[in-house]
Amino acid sequence: MSKPNVIVIGAGGVGVIAAVSLDFNAKSNVSLVVRSDYGHVKEHGYTIKSCSYGNLDGWRPQTLFGSSEEASNSGTFFDYIVVTTKNIPDGPFQSRVEEVVRPVLESNRKLDSERQSNILLIQNGIDIEKDLFKTFSKQEYNYTALSGVQIVASTKVGRGVIDHIGPENLAVGAFDPSDRNAVEAAKQFISIYLNEGHNMAQFDERVRYSRWKKLLYNAAINTTTALVGLDVPRALEFGVNKQSTEFEIFKPAMREIIAIAAAEGIVLEEKFIDFFTDATRNLIFKPSMCVDMEKGQLMELEAILGNPLRIGKSYGIDAPILSMLYNLLHMLQFKLREQKGLLKFDEQTARIVD
Amino acid sequence: MSKPNVIVIGAGGVGVIAAVSLDFNAKSNVSLVVRSDYGHVKEHGYTIKSCSYGNLDGWRPQTLFGSSEEASNSGTFFDYIVVTTKNIPDGPFQSRVEEVVRPVLESNRKLDSERQSNILLIQNGIDIEKDLFKTFSKQEYNYTALSGVQIVASTKVGRGVIDHIGPENLAVGAFDPSDRNAVEAAKQFISIYLNEGHNMAQFDERVRYSRWKKLLYNAAINTTTALVGLDVPRALEFGVNKQSTEFEIFKPAMREIIAIAAAEGIVLEEKFIDFFTDATRNLIFKPSMCVDMEKGQLMELEAILGNPLRIGKSYGIDAPILSMLYNLLHMLQFKLREQKGLLKFDEQTARIVD
Repeated sequence: MSKPNVIVIGAGGVGVIAAVSLDFNAKSNVSLVVRSDYGHVKEHGYTIKSCSYGNLDGWRPQTLFGSSEEASNSGTFFDYIVVTTKNIPDGPFQSRVEEVVRPVLESNRKLDSERQSNILLIQNGIDIEKDLFKTFSKQEYNYTALSGVQIVASTKVGRGVIDHIGPENLAVGAFDPSDRNAVEAAKQFISIYLNEGHNMAQFDERVRYSRWKKLLYNAAINTTTALVGLDVPRALEFGVNKQSTEFEIFKPAMREIIAIAAAEGIVLEEKFIDFFTDATRNLIFKPSMCVDMEKGQLMELEAILGNPLRIGKSYGIDAPILSMLYNLLHMLQFKLREQKGLLKFDEQTARIVD
Repeated sequence: MSKPNVIVIGAGGVGVIAAVSLDFNAKSNVSLVVRSDYGHVKEHGYTIKSCSYGNLDGWRPQTLFGSSEEASNSGTFFDYIVVTTKNIPDGPFQSRVEEVVRPVLESNRKLDSERQSNILLIQNGIDIEKDLFKTFSKQEYNYTALSGVQIVASTKVGRGVIDHIGPENLAVGAFDPSDRNAVEAAKQFISIYLNEGHNMAQFDERVRYSRWKKLLYNAAINTTTALVGLDVPRALEFGVNKQSTEFEIFKPAMREIIAIAAAEGIVLEEKFIDFFTDATRNLIFKPSMCVDMEKGQLMELEAILGNPLRIGKSYGIDAPILSMLYNLLHMLQFKLREQKGLLKFDEQTARIVD
């Protein structure tokens, strides 16, 4: 059997290291879609300081594309479409998951409608697959949807420069665990991704559980730091009597996530509440939403907070702390959208122009 | 009887207009303590565009001081010590109300221990008089404490430049309504302050009620805008479905203030909830805490939110929305304090250095 073709869409810290891991393993043909840095990377390649793969200078995957449209004109069938962009359904239309996947999924169908496409979302949040299923009929496009939960500390620090300081731990499963094709595809993906001694990657039968688990951190801690623009240790120490952030925000918010997950039958262990708080207590580190906020970039608010709250609401679960965080961050997200020209506010009428 | 001597401490938008009102009436001798703009104002006076008093060019009160220490060396007994600084008990020591009042109160006592001093706080918040009473014995210092609630739109827009766009409405009463000397002093103050046709000023028998009423706006709306850095119309429109800011933050937060005030026997009418929301809905205006936050200045957080919450707690009243706002703003206040060098955070130990 020939090697599968993998295209990684999204060349931030997560995407580039995913492409490096696949390339290192050499069991697949790796393409990477690079948007903003395309010219630079085409000419010079990446400069990567990696805790797992050493210093890579001028590194490039086998193929580089400037967009997924470009990839769709390459005549290649991509067996795995790996999306590592941020998940921002309320962002610009052309950056939404469905839209970055669409050209490749369409060209795959035209190239070989019998051959299976596998879409793997390595992104934060919960229910992020729903927009895919709504947009693309599974029969018509012959695809599976795979869910990837990645724990990695890797950041694009400049044009074509990646600092990878914490090793990967990737869990991949099927969004729909009853979809046997998806389960098989997830297992195959792990086999082409895992580099023993360099990274961790495993098939995850309960990947929705893993998503909820990661949300404990993201919905409670990531969100709070974004609102106040502080790293986690400062957020903790700057609370009322150095206590309120931990005991009146982080921990009750995590308990709300546990309650919402429980309503849909997923049991998250209480011990994770202390685990996530203590793991970050001494780490001078600004979580992703905080970084986005400070850079004036849209945050993954709906994936991380909007969707869990909507699930909670559908089960009648109250989540006052998370709701308050959401209501406040929603204003900040719209402030960012206005700054980016994605919405227009008319000061004469004091209304958003629809 | 000779004219009373009044010293106004704090030359922001509120303080300068208070000095102008007193000066216009000519029933008192007016001194003003100007800190940052002292040199400029001494030389050029103020440039004031006033909706009540017209354009004043080169305006000065009878006496200018660069600090209350300087005033205390002038040999003048000040009958009214009017404090119009921001109330920030968690700010720099020398800016606290007790400390700006102290030199004048001490010199008054030395000049004539039989003559009554009257301290009038024209400041936001509730329970702001307590630090005075804790610091200065009423017997020893022979003073009364007066409470002023000022509604005015007046801003210092540059060195010695004041824009006064909304007329004054000043209510003055005794912090302790059973203190007859204070009640008399409050009434006398109104008589030297009121300029019929130019400003509004009245003696207020229920000034604590008026403070609570103003807190409806300040604790709910001012605070929220500071967290997100938006004017009120945007804060409203940028909520989830354009609804959550009004119905899940502003109004429930105001209801919590009503419940706390009720616990101490003060009945605030429910109609004010709609009134304050609607009054600001179309006004492109950033409230004071929002402005402070954006300028990197400390906010009046304890006067506006910390004290009401402590009162609520003493009566066992839950205030989840206000508490969340407080817990978040507390982090922002400490962030500002770190930026101003008022606290030191050690990144090695990830702790505040005490």
